[in-house]
Amino acid sequence: MWKPNRNSSSSLHHQIINWITNQINTGNWVVGTKLPTQRQLALQFEVNRSTIQQALDELKADGIIEAKRGAGVFVANNSWNLLAKKQQPNWQRYIDESIHKPNYRTIQLINEYEQEDSIIRLGTGEISPNLLPTKELLESLQNLSLTGKDIGYSSPQGHEELRIAVCQHVKKRGIATTPDNILIVSGALQALQLMAVSLFEPGSIVFQEPISYLNSIHPFQSYGIQMKSIKRDAALSTTLYSLKKHRQTIYYTVPTLDNPTGKVWSTEEKKRFYEICTSLQIPILEDDVYADLLFETDSHSIKSFDSSGQVIYISSVSKTLSPGLRIGWIIGPTPVIKRLTDIKMQMDYGSSAISQKIVTYWLTSGLYQKHLVELKSQLKSRANFMISILSEYFHSIATWESPKGGFYIWLKYNKPIVTRELFLKVLKRNVLVNPGYIYDTEDSTHIRLSYAYASLDELKYGLMILYEESILAIKAADFYK
Amino acid sequence: MWKPNRNSSSSLHHQIINWITNQINTGNWVVGTKLPTQRQLALQFEVNRSTIQQALDELKADGIIEAKRGAGVFVANNSWNLLAKKQQPNWQRYIDESIHKPNYRTIQLINEYEQEDSIIRLGTGEISPNLLPTKELLESLQNLSLTGKDIGYSSPQGHEELRIAVCQHVKKRGIATTPDNILIVSGALQALQLMAVSLFEPGSIVFQEPISYLNSIHPFQSYGIQMKSIKRDAALSTTLYSLKKHRQTIYYTVPTLDNPTGKVWSTEEKKRFYEICTSLQIPILEDDVYADLLFETDSHSIKSFDSSGQVIYISSVSKTLSPGLRIGWIIGPTPVIKRLTDIKMQMDYGSSAISQKIVTYWLTSGLYQKHLVELKSQLKSRANFMISILSEYFHSIATWESPKGGFYIWLKYNKPIVTRELFLKVLKRNVLVNPGYIYDTEDSTHIRLSYAYASLDELKYGLMILYEESILAIKAADFYK
Repeated sequence: MWKPNRNSSSSLHHQIINWITNQINTGNWVVGTKLPTQRQLALQFEVNRSTIQQALDELKADGIIEAKRGAGVFVANNSWNLLAKKQQPNWQRYIDESIHKPNYRTIQLINEYEQEDSIIRLGTGEISPNLLPTKELLESLQNLSLTGKDIGYSSPQGHEELRIAVCQHVKKRGIATTPDNILIVSGALQALQLMAVSLFEPGSIVFQEPISYLNSIHPFQSYGIQMKSIKRDAALSTTLYSLKKHRQTIYYTVPTLDNPTGKVWSTEEKKRFYEICTSLQIPILEDDVYADLLFETDSHSIKSFDSSGQVIYISSVSKTLSPGLRIGWIIGPTPVIKRLTDIKMQMDYGSSAISQKIVTYWLTSGLYQKHLVELKSQLKSRANFMISILSEYFHSIATWESPKGGFYIWLKYNKPIVTRELFLKVLKRNVLVNPGYIYDTEDSTHIRLSYAYASLDELKYGLMILYEESILAIKAADFYK
Repeated sequence: MWKPNRNSSSSLHHQIINWITNQINTGNWVVGTKLPTQRQLALQFEVNRSTIQQALDELKADGIIEAKRGAGVFVANNSWNLLAKKQQPNWQRYIDESIHKPNYRTIQLINEYEQEDSIIRLGTGEISPNLLPTKELLESLQNLSLTGKDIGYSSPQGHEELRIAVCQHVKKRGIATTPDNILIVSGALQALQLMAVSLFEPGSIVFQEPISYLNSIHPFQSYGIQMKSIKRDAALSTTLYSLKKHRQTIYYTVPTLDNPTGKVWSTEEKKRFYEICTSLQIPILEDDVYADLLFETDSHSIKSFDSSGQVIYISSVSKTLSPGLRIGWIIGPTPVIKRLTDIKMQMDYGSSAISQKIVTYWLTSGLYQKHLVELKSQLKSRANFMISILSEYFHSIATWESPKGGFYIWLKYNKPIVTRELFLKVLKRNVLVNPGYIYDTEDSTHIRLSYAYASLDELKYGLMILYEESILAIKAADFYK
């Protein structure tokens, strides 16, 4: 990245002015481009914020950039701006009117701040870098064998050896399948995107529970597919039945270590759910990405009951081995897998061959299982640590359940205080949490906490800050009542 | 993969019947699933085709599967089929009515046959496994360093070190950019998909030349974006102008070593094209994936003239280092890159960290440049070899130009004989070519030949077969005239 040269005869702020001017001149920063914040520029250029301020002030005075109150600083579009006085495409209009929805603002903020080292990540859906088997993964590279065919365009369905390994792997989830019924994808998120455009049309319906991971992303909504929240309770059958007339429907669920609630359905609940959906011919999309992180008892997948090709099953190694490998899988009936493979080929022509080789090696060598044992033990002790802090401080203002595995505690406040304001106040103190309204727009009482990422010290410190801000929010709520 | 057990007391064909029955019973093969061909089943099970025939005949007699004339054998949906007599979702209807277009039938056939070792691939867009630096790539894994952060969810924009390396790399294409203006993608194909849903809406227009790679895929068409073919000639300006009223337009082109024609535009042509498009405010999508394979002179990219953020540039290492890594990049104005990053995050949360590490290492260590020198020399000698055979045999029935780099010779027959029939006749003799109509539905005189994949012996043998079938086609055409 460019930085001003401290040995140059030109002053730092002049060098910065030149660099910014050049960004505009080369069309990298077109009219309307939002400049990075002063803080970000100061970090990138390794200069004081006052130097940045000086540079930006001069550019503003020249009419080259302009501040918009509350929104930031932008490349100006005005008659004084000689630099921008060329014909440029109006990219913002392209963006504003295009097909795919942007990430929600809160999610964008979370993503932005997650990149910063000073932030304590108290809600994140990722294990700590310290818990990843980085050294072992690096060592395992030496055991890979590669042929020219391996690193060519291989079958978009995925390496056969990996699909065979996945067949073995999912046996412990009670699933009997064949390599032909598996598609390798670049993480479970890609599975959702693929399914959206390969199996549905505008107006199709994806059912989900009211509190759902799917509310924090929108792989389906961008294509006009409707989301319908339906509680998985006694009324399920009738409600679903009344909606059955729609041509393409599916019920999305995370029945084992749900995200964000951490719930694990009982075997009976899974069976009953499968039977209801089968009788209504509503397929099930089972997201099983956390199942390898069950602390105690094994719990079979819904897919294990499937004898009618009713369940499409997705999972990955992103929550266990490494998100960076970008390897997941879809298991389903042959025509569905064929269709998804054809579209996967058009999307990205298959997943990284090296990543596939690595996952094959980890699944077949026993390294993966060994790593799981260690990881689960670490997560369990982290969960206990978080519970102990919650018990000490949050017991009078919130409730929670002891996690059965995975990353999360779904903290439930006694009062509705979880607002965007609380989220921002906590963030201002460098602590990032996932507020419940990401997963259910109506929610104002929950926070998804994760004990998987931050260090123990950070967990404690972060929870203290959350506690302090929660108490203030409760007091404010009481005051205005 | 399952195979019948030859030591079992049960006969081979009974074991196969049981296996197929089980596929249906578990819902892997739902009603309407097309069975693999007898040939494929015989290969997979390592038995004679007569054994397969016997098994299928029994299943047909039991009403479990049924043959549809010319279409294949399917899991039956009838009252005799006790196995299938459960409620199943009608997956075929989901597929038929969904958003994304399937691959064209000819492309599906090509993909299917490309997986078979006995096929001579005479048109394929991929370098031979022998030309890939497999050994060096494997060795280079030992020079990688990895931190836990590297293999976590990293920035969906791509590793910063790779974006810095790409900045350096594209300098030789005349491009001055910054790491912030680069998005790492999983190959250039993903770049097209991302752009389609991130910058366009139904009714937007993508311009292209009449013969275009984009006709063989449909990243845009599936979302209602229109493709318009416009010759890049004197009339370009007026024609484009008349279409300018549309809100979002872009002109897609491969100006350096075009796919499939192999053409390289002159610097003047590129400049003029840039100026016309800029004056009309029609952005350019420059696909530069073959440029590193120019045999002789360097030819600057269109992006190198860009001073207004008019050009979005895409490239990758798939045509040079390894398709299996799935690493490419998009270079564009900051707001466009920000938008594409936000959507990339929702698509697959970034590209494989290990693949990114490898490409960073190859670009920065000099290994990539060294490999290019060797690869280009090999490709050039292969090109000469193909030309010598063409000169000897095809001189009286077709014309071609000497390639300036890349993989392809765009063979032009004197008569319109390139039909699906010719394609299939050649394929029947185990030779796979890419007929011109894949790239221009009106075309019946061209074949895209590639000298990059098959061995020299295969190239010669394959061309002989193509020659024989071409002569027969010409005779037939003359006869019916």
